[in-house]
Amino acid sequence: GHELLAAERAKSNVPVEKLQELLFTKKVIDQKQKVLDVLKSEKVFDKSQNYFAGRTERFETALARAKRLRNLKLKHNWTLDEFRTASELISEPGPYGLHESMFLITLNEQGTPEQRDEFLVKANDYKIIGCYAQTELGHGSNVRGLETTATWDSQDKTFIIHSPHLTASKWWIGSLGRTANYAVVMAQLIVDGKSHGPHPFVVQIRDLKTHEPLENVHVGDIGPKFGYNTMDNGFLLFNKYKVPHISMLARFSRVNPDTNQYVRQGSPSLIYGTLTWVRSTIVMQAGSVLARGVTIATRYSAIRRQFQDRDAPASEVGETPVLNYTMVQIRLLPLLAATFALHFTGKSMMNLYSENQKKMNAKHENANSSRGAGPEETQSGSDILADLHATSCGLKALSSTIAAEGLEVCRRACGGHGYSSFSGIGPWYSDYLPTTTWEGDNYMLTQQVARYLLKSARAVIAGSAPSNDTTAILTSFRSRASIGCAFDILGSSSDLVAAFAWRASFLTFEALKHRDEQGKAWNDLLVDFYRLSKAHSQYMVVKNFYTALQSPETRGAVDQNTLAVLHSLFRLYALHTLEQEGSEFYASGACSKHQISLTRTTTVMALLAEIRPHAIRLVDAWGFDDWVLDSSLGRYDGKVYEDMFYRASELNPLNRITVDPYPDSDVLFRRVEGEGVRSKL
Amino acid sequence: GHELLAAERAKSNVPVEKLQELLFTKKVIDQKQKVLDVLKSEKVFDKSQNYFAGRTERFETALARAKRLRNLKLKHNWTLDEFRTASELISEPGPYGLHESMFLITLNEQGTPEQRDEFLVKANDYKIIGCYAQTELGHGSNVRGLETTATWDSQDKTFIIHSPHLTASKWWIGSLGRTANYAVVMAQLIVDGKSHGPHPFVVQIRDLKTHEPLENVHVGDIGPKFGYNTMDNGFLLFNKYKVPHISMLARFSRVNPDTNQYVRQGSPSLIYGTLTWVRSTIVMQAGSVLARGVTIATRYSAIRRQFQDRDAPASEVGETPVLNYTMVQIRLLPLLAATFALHFTGKSMMNLYSENQKKMNAKHENANSSRGAGPEETQSGSDILADLHATSCGLKALSSTIAAEGLEVCRRACGGHGYSSFSGIGPWYSDYLPTTTWEGDNYMLTQQVARYLLKSARAVIAGSAPSNDTTAILTSFRSRASIGCAFDILGSSSDLVAAFAWRASFLTFEALKHRDEQGKAWNDLLVDFYRLSKAHSQYMVVKNFYTALQSPETRGAVDQNTLAVLHSLFRLYALHTLEQEGSEFYASGACSKHQISLTRTTTVMALLAEIRPHAIRLVDAWGFDDWVLDSSLGRYDGKVYEDMFYRASELNPLNRITVDPYPDSDVLFRRVEGEGVRSKL
Ligand SMILES: Cc1cc2nc3c(=O)[nH]c(=O)nc-3n(C[C@H](O)[C@H](O)[C@H](O)COP(=O)(O)OP(=O)(O)OC[C@H]3O[C@@H](n4cnc5c(N)ncnc54)[C@H](O)[C@@H]3O)c2cc1C
Ligand SMILES: Cc1cc2nc3c(=O)[nH]c(=O)nc-3n(C[C@H](O)[C@H](O)[C@H](O)COP(=O)(O)OP(=O)(O)OC[C@H]3O[C@@H](n4cnc5c(N)ncnc54)[C@H](O)[C@@H]3O)c2cc1C
Repeated sequence: GHELLAAERAKSNVPVEKLQELLFTKKVIDQKQKVLDVLKSEKVFDKSQNYFAGRTERFETALARAKRLRNLKLKHNWTLDEFRTASELISEPGPYGLHESMFLITLNEQGTPEQRDEFLVKANDYKIIGCYAQTELGHGSNVRGLETTATWDSQDKTFIIHSPHLTASKWWIGSLGRTANYAVVMAQLIVDGKSHGPHPFVVQIRDLKTHEPLENVHVGDIGPKFGYNTMDNGFLLFNKYKVPHISMLARFSRVNPDTNQYVRQGSPSLIYGTLTWVRSTIVMQAGSVLARGVTIATRYSAIRRQFQDRDAPASEVGETPVLNYTMVQIRLLPLLAATFALHFTGKSMMNLYSENQKKMNAKHENANSSRGAGPEETQSGSDILADLHATSCGLKALSSTIAAEGLEVCRRACGGHGYSSFSGIGPWYSDYLPTTTWEGDNYMLTQQVARYLLKSARAVIAGSAPSNDTTAILTSFRSRASIGCAFDILGSSSDLVAAFAWRASFLTFEALKHRDEQGKAWNDLLVDFYRLSKAHSQYMVVKNFYTALQSPETRGAVDQNTLAVLHSLFRLYALHTLEQEGSEFYASGACSKHQISLTRTTTVMALLAEIRPHAIRLVDAWGFDDWVLDSSLGRYDGKVYEDMFYRASELNPLNRITVDPYPDSDVLFRRVEGEGVRSKL
Repeated sequence: GHELLAAERAKSNVPVEKLQELLFTKKVIDQKQKVLDVLKSEKVFDKSQNYFAGRTERFETALARAKRLRNLKLKHNWTLDEFRTASELISEPGPYGLHESMFLITLNEQGTPEQRDEFLVKANDYKIIGCYAQTELGHGSNVRGLETTATWDSQDKTFIIHSPHLTASKWWIGSLGRTANYAVVMAQLIVDGKSHGPHPFVVQIRDLKTHEPLENVHVGDIGPKFGYNTMDNGFLLFNKYKVPHISMLARFSRVNPDTNQYVRQGSPSLIYGTLTWVRSTIVMQAGSVLARGVTIATRYSAIRRQFQDRDAPASEVGETPVLNYTMVQIRLLPLLAATFALHFTGKSMMNLYSENQKKMNAKHENANSSRGAGPEETQSGSDILADLHATSCGLKALSSTIAAEGLEVCRRACGGHGYSSFSGIGPWYSDYLPTTTWEGDNYMLTQQVARYLLKSARAVIAGSAPSNDTTAILTSFRSRASIGCAFDILGSSSDLVAAFAWRASFLTFEALKHRDEQGKAWNDLLVDFYRLSKAHSQYMVVKNFYTALQSPETRGAVDQNTLAVLHSLFRLYALHTLEQEGSEFYASGACSKHQISLTRTTTVMALLAEIRPHAIRLVDAWGFDDWVLDSSLGRYDGKVYEDMFYRASELNPLNRITVDPYPDSDVLFRRVEGEGVRSKL
């Protein structure tokens, strides 16, 4: 394997380091290396038994790691960024996961200064450890349907938290099962018999000394899962459990204890901002999540040789690396292209988000300085935010689906060995899968995108001037409605982007016709909405990838040859996607039957051949350390078989056991190294 | 949940029992019930801890179950069929798996009478326990590339089995890791310096008393996998290991010990027959494998309620079962249709296979009776066998892909709860996945199908009369080449089938043009071949489903209403597939743009609505017992939440542990029910 990968690297001159710096910046790479060195030197992070351990052991190790990580942060005075880098490098969900994310964020964003003093300070110090308890056994997506109640008791000025039915049990709550002693609990606020919808309450659930559940609290772990087994997702039921007035997080609404009135204050739009931010990070992470699988499968298929090429000249002896088969290339190389596409898209979303935050803050300051914001400022700020919010929903759905399904394609591309845990793909895939369901189920998010696009289309029809990219492409589509289009998708990359915009716009107005003119029921349009959201999100990815390649930042970072390779990746991603969705493109008039057929039979195949020699260096540019990949198949040095064999024969605990194989004997394990006869039927 | 499922069942009058009998026959259903009753009463088959146990425990339990099963077979005098039924009901791979299948089959088919006396008798008695060791660390698909050698020693008349490199290590061999004491080893036969390719050897690897590996044999378990962890897949290396002459299975070729000559005898075509049979069972199983997931997801989404319908009349209060959302229907109902499509296709393949075997045997007898078979008899027998062999490759690939990917669609359709092991889908999916890789990797099989189709097309061009269904549709396509076609895909079901035949034929002649006229390299055509194989296999499924519905057997089994529902399932399967592959159908001229767009926007949606009320009864007809499904979400009585809660809070061993949650403490598990303080950092 070693020589094969070395030869692959010699074949291409893509500058791995420069490309890596373009993706991450030198600063981030160095920081990652520094943190990695610390982690590697700590025995508790040793991964060699990860793939063997059962649920309880894995959770135990994860808890040990979480504790150690916290202590390392203190010891090395890590910034939050460095701490997050460390968690990413360890690559497994841990029992402090929800404490360190949603619990702290919620206290910070939704707490009053007094509440922050009371809870956040202790939480930051791990004196209390929390989680975020929203989902219930009976309700996830439909937050308004939550059944847990928090009833204001005007007598003793407390809230009574109660779970009226079994389905009201909190469920799936990360860090709750065994670890947390506090929870932010979303509950229906009831004041004087009137319900005001779900509100967040900070609730103690376990004793801070004994760590046993408090009275009238029933809490535990929900059991094994498809993945995520290092995390203790939990359940939680309350039996008329009293909490003090301060428990209700009161930044945006509160119950006045004197008047017993429910009061709203300020606007929780900040929370939407956070949601947008979280979704944008999911988009960017999707690129690197997928890149792990692509790195492993690409390296492995460069060293895995199977069969001689039927048409190979007699001089070429020996078997062919399977990466040379076009049927392997068509599975892996478009995914390789997708890793870059998603990365640049996520990055641009996050930039847009921070710019917009700055603008909003500036506006805020201007307002304070009593000059007042000009109308375009307000307008553009919020319109861009609305656009960002909607597009981030669609992109979250698209990108996490691409990553999750792409990982399975990578695993299967590795043939039999892909099925071994040592491939490193399966366990990673299993842990990633919930991303398609949480932060908005991928199917349901598409309704939000469609709703936004319909609204935008209505505005365009009503004659509003375009105020963001979405309304711009819709306007341009409408202006050409009577003359059609002619995109040179195979000759011009900007035309290729325009074809994606055209198809998305076409589907938007089609959906609008169904809803507004034909008055179809919302439910009858869900499948169309799903397609629409996908089309719009694919346009966004293609556009952002293209824009990133045009940017001075990129053009300055790498040489012309490398730019050409990146450009081929862009075209491969775009054209492969276009071909997959051929009938929509054709139906919209964005391209002709002949163009689609040329794409399929000629252009995509030519792009595969162009990219093939650079495949290994392109995955190298993602810069995954072997320690991080924890994969026999994906080793940087290609020593796949040696590593498989070592793990199987040296690390595998099952090989310590000698069984009694005969059905007429009751003995199962005849001998366990270090023990006597052990188990009986 | 209970009332909801009862109401669902009341809405439809599909006769569940009759339909079930149509699928399986009354005899098989009764037999299954009888076996199930036995299994349920045995403690060792209790499933309640399956989802919690780690690798070693799971293997241990699986061994206990395998032993018990063997003893039950003796006790109840089960037929082979009943024994297989029992294994299926237990639904987990077990350590005797390869002994009971490939080991026995190979001894039987490839052994001489003498060898059967020597090995098969003991194997049938479990005095020796074997496995089938073909795949190596370095070679799987390419069997001819195997590296293990068996060198004939003319001096002492033995074979020397040897693994010259690490990559020669046998790998993935089921039942080998811990259980087997014998193996059928595929090794390159070398006689007098000349290699004769891979041949099977029966080799003892462990001591029959101590069960320790014999000298010069290195054997063990290959470690944890994505699934299949109840099976001990193993590795095996030989260091110049001597075995006697009788070890080489000699039915089809042998080394003459006197002359030291390699001799072939008889034709191993029988083995191809077995391969065809195995692939046909995979097709049929794919239907029921998928049906488990569809049963679980359909029942769950009938009781899972989330949101009120936006357009619902004010009188309809309460939340909507998610199965009412068209976006859930479009994911589940085409898969429900696929379960029936695959079942009927597999059944018809197996019938064709047995009929053909009978014909061949008759021919054989005729030949013996010295009358000689008529030319059509020989012709049709072998041509149908060739067709069956090729189509079984394509169908194996298509059906196992549909089942595997469909299961994941079902899991995700269940939202968050689908991720819990208690859903029962994840574990089942993980165990099923290797079916896409073994018995021919699904991608690679498509090359065999394409090769066969190209050959058939060449024969048709050369003017041969059609001799089977494949050449018949190719001939008919060619005869219309200059006049095209006009299929009423939405109005006529036979036209719909014909459209599938048309597209497959079109792609066949296209591929032939690329290969023969344009002289494209084989490797450059792999993607086209993949598409071609898929198209042809989809045609086969659609045709077989349609034919099954037309058959007197079906028409006599259920009433007109039920036939209409089955017919809707057929149309849904066919039209949904057609729409997914829209651009190929369009490019081939099999249908118009307008037809495809109507399919998408109108017909498929209408079919979903037609089938929706019968969904629960249709899955009920698959007849999975709750004990078999082992799923909280898929319970027949709909008591989903109660069961989830029971398993989480009562059965989950993690809840016996109280942790120390603070990072400044070294203690991890403060208290384990029944133990003292346990673990430290
Ligand atoms: C590993 C994991 C960790 C989690 N951690 C937490 C946590 O820490 N805290 C927390 O509060 N929650 C957590 N969750 C819960 C998670 O947020 C929910 O599972 C998620 O929001 C999906 O909701 P649901 O499960 O209710 O799906 P459901 O809403 O029940 O969806 C079921 C199906 O119905 C469909 N559907 C539902 N409504 C509609 C509609 N209106 N139109 C069309 N289709 C519809 C969906 O697409 C889906 O296919 C976690 C979940 C997982 C899997
Ligand atoms: C759970 C499990 C149990 C098993 N049990 C047994 C057993 O009991 N006994 C036994 O002998 N074996 C067993 N196997 C091995 C199994 O048969 C092989 O894994 C399978 O044949 C695939 O071969 P491979 O792993 O070498 O894949 P490879 O051939 O290495 O394939 C790797 C990749 O290359 C592609 N590829 C390879 N060649 C070509 C080509 N010519 N053209 C295009 N693409 C190509 C494939 O599509 C795949 O994507 C088992 C495997 C598993 C996973």
